[in-house]
Amino acid sequence: MDFRSDNVSGAAPEIMAALLEANKGDVSSYGADPFSAELDAAFSALFDHDCKVFPVATGTAANVLSLACLAPGYGAIYCHQDAHIAVDECNAPEFYTGGAKLVTLPGANGKIDLAALEAQLALGWTGSQHSAQPAAVSITQATEAGTVYSPDEVADIAHRCKAHGLKLHMDGARFANAVAGLNCAPADLTWRAGVDVLSFGATKNGAMSAEAVVFFKPELAESFLYRRKRGGHLFSKSRYLSVQLLAMLENNLWLRLAREANARARELADGLGKLPGAKVVWPVQANEVFVQLPAAAAAAMRQRGALFHTWSEADSLYRFVCAFDKSSADTAALVRAATEALA
Amino acid sequence: MDFRSDNVSGAAPEIMAALLEANKGDVSSYGADPFSAELDAAFSALFDHDCKVFPVATGTAANVLSLACLAPGYGAIYCHQDAHIAVDECNAPEFYTGGAKLVTLPGANGKIDLAALEAQLALGWTGSQHSAQPAAVSITQATEAGTVYSPDEVADIAHRCKAHGLKLHMDGARFANAVAGLNCAPADLTWRAGVDVLSFGATKNGAMSAEAVVFFKPELAESFLYRRKRGGHLFSKSRYLSVQLLAMLENNLWLRLAREANARARELADGLGKLPGAKVVWPVQANEVFVQLPAAAAAAMRQRGALFHTWSEADSLYRFVCAFDKSSADTAALVRAATEALA
Amino acid sequence: MDFRSDNVSGAAPEIMAALLEANKGDVSSYGADPFSAELDAAFSALFDHDCKVFPVATGTAANVLSLACLAPGYGAIYCHQDAHIAVDECNAPEFYTGGAKLVTLPGANGKIDLAALEAQLALGWTGSQHSAQPAAVSITQATEAGTVYSPDEVADIAHRCKAHGLKLHMDGARFANAVAGLNCAPADLTWRAGVDVLSFGATKNGAMSAEAVVFFKPELAESFLYRRKRGGHLFSKSRYLSVQLLAMLENNLWLRLAREANARARELADGLGKLPGAKVVWPVQANEVFVQLPAAAAAAMRQRGALFHTWSEADSLYRFVCAFDKSSADTAALVRAATEALA
Amino acid sequence: MDFRSDNVSGAAPEIMAALLEANKGDVSSYGADPFSAELDAAFSALFDHDCKVFPVATGTAANVLSLACLAPGYGAIYCHQDAHIAVDECNAPEFYTGGAKLVTLPGANGKIDLAALEAQLALGWTGSQHSAQPAAVSITQATEAGTVYSPDEVADIAHRCKAHGLKLHMDGARFANAVAGLNCAPADLTWRAGVDVLSFGATKNGAMSAEAVVFFKPELAESFLYRRKRGGHLFSKSRYLSVQLLAMLENNLWLRLAREANARARELADGLGKLPGAKVVWPVQANEVFVQLPAAAAAAMRQRGALFHTWSEADSLYRFVCAFDKSSADTAALVRAATEALA
Repeated sequence: MDFRSDNVSGAAPEIMAALLEANKGDVSSYGADPFSAELDAAFSALFDHDCKVFPVATGTAANVLSLACLAPGYGAIYCHQDAHIAVDECNAPEFYTGGAKLVTLPGANGKIDLAALEAQLALGWTGSQHSAQPAAVSITQATEAGTVYSPDEVADIAHRCKAHGLKLHMDGARFANAVAGLNCAPADLTWRAGVDVLSFGATKNGAMSAEAVVFFKPELAESFLYRRKRGGHLFSKSRYLSVQLLAMLENNLWLRLAREANARARELADGLGKLPGAKVVWPVQANEVFVQLPAAAAAAMRQRGALFHTWSEADSLYRFVCAFDKSSADTAALVRAATEALA
Repeated sequence: MDFRSDNVSGAAPEIMAALLEANKGDVSSYGADPFSAELDAAFSALFDHDCKVFPVATGTAANVLSLACLAPGYGAIYCHQDAHIAVDECNAPEFYTGGAKLVTLPGANGKIDLAALEAQLALGWTGSQHSAQPAAVSITQATEAGTVYSPDEVADIAHRCKAHGLKLHMDGARFANAVAGLNCAPADLTWRAGVDVLSFGATKNGAMSAEAVVFFKPELAESFLYRRKRGGHLFSKSRYLSVQLLAMLENNLWLRLAREANARARELADGLGKLPGAKVVWPVQANEVFVQLPAAAAAAMRQRGALFHTWSEADSLYRFVCAFDKSSADTAALVRAATEALA
Repeated sequence: MDFRSDNVSGAAPEIMAALLEANKGDVSSYGADPFSAELDAAFSALFDHDCKVFPVATGTAANVLSLACLAPGYGAIYCHQDAHIAVDECNAPEFYTGGAKLVTLPGANGKIDLAALEAQLALGWTGSQHSAQPAAVSITQATEAGTVYSPDEVADIAHRCKAHGLKLHMDGARFANAVAGLNCAPADLTWRAGVDVLSFGATKNGAMSAEAVVFFKPELAESFLYRRKRGGHLFSKSRYLSVQLLAMLENNLWLRLAREANARARELADGLGKLPGAKVVWPVQANEVFVQLPAAAAAAMRQRGALFHTWSEADSLYRFVCAFDKSSADTAALVRAATEALA
Repeated sequence: MDFRSDNVSGAAPEIMAALLEANKGDVSSYGADPFSAELDAAFSALFDHDCKVFPVATGTAANVLSLACLAPGYGAIYCHQDAHIAVDECNAPEFYTGGAKLVTLPGANGKIDLAALEAQLALGWTGSQHSAQPAAVSITQATEAGTVYSPDEVADIAHRCKAHGLKLHMDGARFANAVAGLNCAPADLTWRAGVDVLSFGATKNGAMSAEAVVFFKPELAESFLYRRKRGGHLFSKSRYLSVQLLAMLENNLWLRLAREANARARELADGLGKLPGAKVVWPVQANEVFVQLPAAAAAAMRQRGALFHTWSEADSLYRFVCAFDKSSADTAALVRAATEALA
């Protein structure tokens, strides 16, 4: 019962099966294999749009290689103050862009506050030689608070981007959970709303280690091959990355897995949220639950072997992240433990 | 019959089995899993020396993260002019070191010429503010020419390094093939000879994608964790990297696989080398064969479906790389095709 | 009557005289001239401490070369949110450090809020591979708000630095004005209070273009020569930088010039501050005045040819920066114009 | 009698006079002063072509800011193996480009061998993700050997650049000496021959510290302002850089000074070259003389106080660099000393 993160889980059986199948025989290396050759078409079909797609192994690689295509070293990238790229990637964005500045913005529920973004863009940095040049906005979908931007909310941000000549990146480490939560078309949440590049996450959603960088405007990808290689992210045996992504798209496995994860979060939120003294602090729209709980409840769950993060000691706030392979029995056991403790 | 490279092959069955086994259940992410916890001890036993070991997914990542720990942006790194880091990594060493200069040196059989190295070090750059500061030497083992440095040859270079305050890195993408070819102790070829950091390759030797950065002096690894993360090379599901490496070391799988590959190269060299008009141009000491052949012989092999690289059109020079899973039947068929063509 | 900045002024006559004098004859280049040879001793005497000193031509160069000696690319540097390095140097700190993150902190009167600094340091980034590694604090003296840190305030920050293993940098573009304002010993404001490296500014204080990077701990300067050269900041004719700095120290020219500038700011603050509807918003402790004024007063001064910045249109806030060569007649004329307009 | 370099000299009287004149009064800072505003027009007139011009203080800054506009971090820049950017700038090109690789080429008389360049470009790196992407060629004019490329020779290189999509940079630290030596139009040696960007040197030619980056294609300069600032090379008091450059162009001071320097080199070459056992090893086409001399001759000159570099102890090769302010009496005295020693 490990709810610390969705990356404590292994890979889905379908992924392992695909890896075993792809393991047979010799294929060209460095992305010239037949699996990798299918990626553009597979994602273009999924997004109903011509896409240029590159597989990488980690979410950080997907994010920072994307950003390096969008922002120069003298550029500014705007993101939420809790964004993974800002607080959890040990300066990888700065490294890959050659020194671009992450300008962090506040915002409720893990989402960028539009007024704060506008205020920044109104500072007039563009064209001033003393200032970082506004280059891109990066939004996280689902957010670090377990919430999701609606297509309209994405479009609102994209609108500001376009007005100021910025590119829009989406860190979709949990994109599947967001789409599952919104039950919308992937296109509606991305290029139709104005997203230029998407980090399409699979690892947290049941892959072994695979993420797709999806460019909705191929011209933005011109330098990607070289940036990926000099970042050390080109796999010689690329087939193993590509086949994970293909398996995810096949029969919508990615959505099925995400829906499972989201359902577990819903169960936890419903169960824990109605306990006396409990409060779910942010809307549960994907696979994460942030809930304030009496100390006794948290202790009881841990005593039964549950693992989860204390998000804020001071606020008695806890985070539960549900992976694709957690069961309703797991969540029910958790809720039961907490309930009994408070009875 | 694909002899273009050893990375056209899939993973060995033992590797796939280990991955399947490791896929069970939840474990801590980001390297805190029980598999990763065994790495230091496993490699320390292999090398008969206290080692600090970090798994990464690509050879380029292993090389450049190593070099970044050894050379500052204003440093110079000396290597052979055909070294992978110099010609095949799209400036990854320059990127990761923050701009260090690769000073390329000539040398027969793919090995650095000692006199050329000494001549460079005699230029007196150390301490001159106008010059890149000599920081490290990187040697490739086995070399790009399919040869190997003997322990004495490594020690000769290490001796120069020590005299000039340089660190010594070994790019061991084919370290297994070198050890198998020399039939020596891993320790003799590395720390006992003066190597500071080793990129221990597994991918080309039958892993799916796994390399170990092995520090023989733990103090050199102080910044490694941060450099790996900001390079995007920390796997959230690190277990899948670590378990490949552990499987390689178990019962000396790494050596068994390398010996197979080397034996195939031996067979090819023996068979092709004695054809009329043929000449094996560099000693076959690992799993690669570079051989000059009459055009008819090359054509005949290709007609039978063999894939291999033309190394130099002008010199009718061809490269054959043998992976762990090629069979004696494969090599025999190749030799037979060439022989018949020249008969 | 240009009060837009202290860099609109030319150089002091003493500086021009020194340059003319130094122009005679041949001297060794690249810092091996006799003028440059005096720098260490001259600054060591000024600071009553062994110093290692390097001349550069711009304040940005002084700041970022300093910071590059203190923080790695995976590091974090803490500074005030209005600091020049954060908002006016077009990502130069990120560039020179290889990607370090500037963590900006709030604070009244342009000074870092101690509690905000402590809260950041309490986040526990040190040793976490996901986080930028806390490396240095940079404070601006005098601040961007025209205020100064007292020796005790500097020591308070240095105390936190020491407790967390951080280095302390002081951006002293207006260090002379701060020392003149506090009337303290340069030592008390720097190394005795815990400062490790100082950007000692001269350009804004009447030099043509010269700043000194002053290391109070020589071991921190080990890589400076190489970083300066690869930044393109080593002058072949270094004598012209060094002689400006020596002329500044001779007979305390630097303090005399700064006292003049500060006195003008005092006059402006006194004169403008007592106008009806006026308010000096931050303590005037160096050579800058930030004052809210009725629109008519600002307009009247501009009509008489005065130049100064509107700091905030919304708040009717104006900035006046006094250079060393402004006269009491200048400031009196300004005050008179404003007074008459409001009469 | 210091012939070690042309940067041991001070500034020409006209330069000092211009600095004194420009020192009067307040002007806008950061390049918005009236002197800087004249640069584009002044250089456009000189080159008979629309130019975009930026002043910086050092030759290294001029070179590497230029190159950073021409080559990405994954790029390759081709230059002569003795080029200043390759051997004397402590990795500044690598730093400013974010890791581009300098590919050094051989060539007689300090000039790039065309066949060697063609051989490199024939390697087929363009478009290969493993390889640095060919981006630019940099030639030095006059070369490090004291020779000059003729307009036709420049055009030959530019022709290769165009064929492969490369940009052409000219390091003109001694551009004035080259133009004076060739007695050609500046346009013929630059944009008409295919040069895209020129580092126009003034410091070695009698300025205090000033170089102009001259873009012959304005679109290449789009990012220059930001790169200059983040490099710390934007002077707050920019007038002092710009006025030096303007003074150089006024009444062709730059050419008059260069002609003086070149004439001195001619005198030295003529005088020393005909001594018994002496040999001028490279054509004297600018202001440098490389001459093999009997040890006694060198010793005698040094005894009379002459300073000059031993270029190669083994070859008894010496370098004499003539600055604008050396006199015929100086060179005659040198020749006399050597002659007497060998008599």
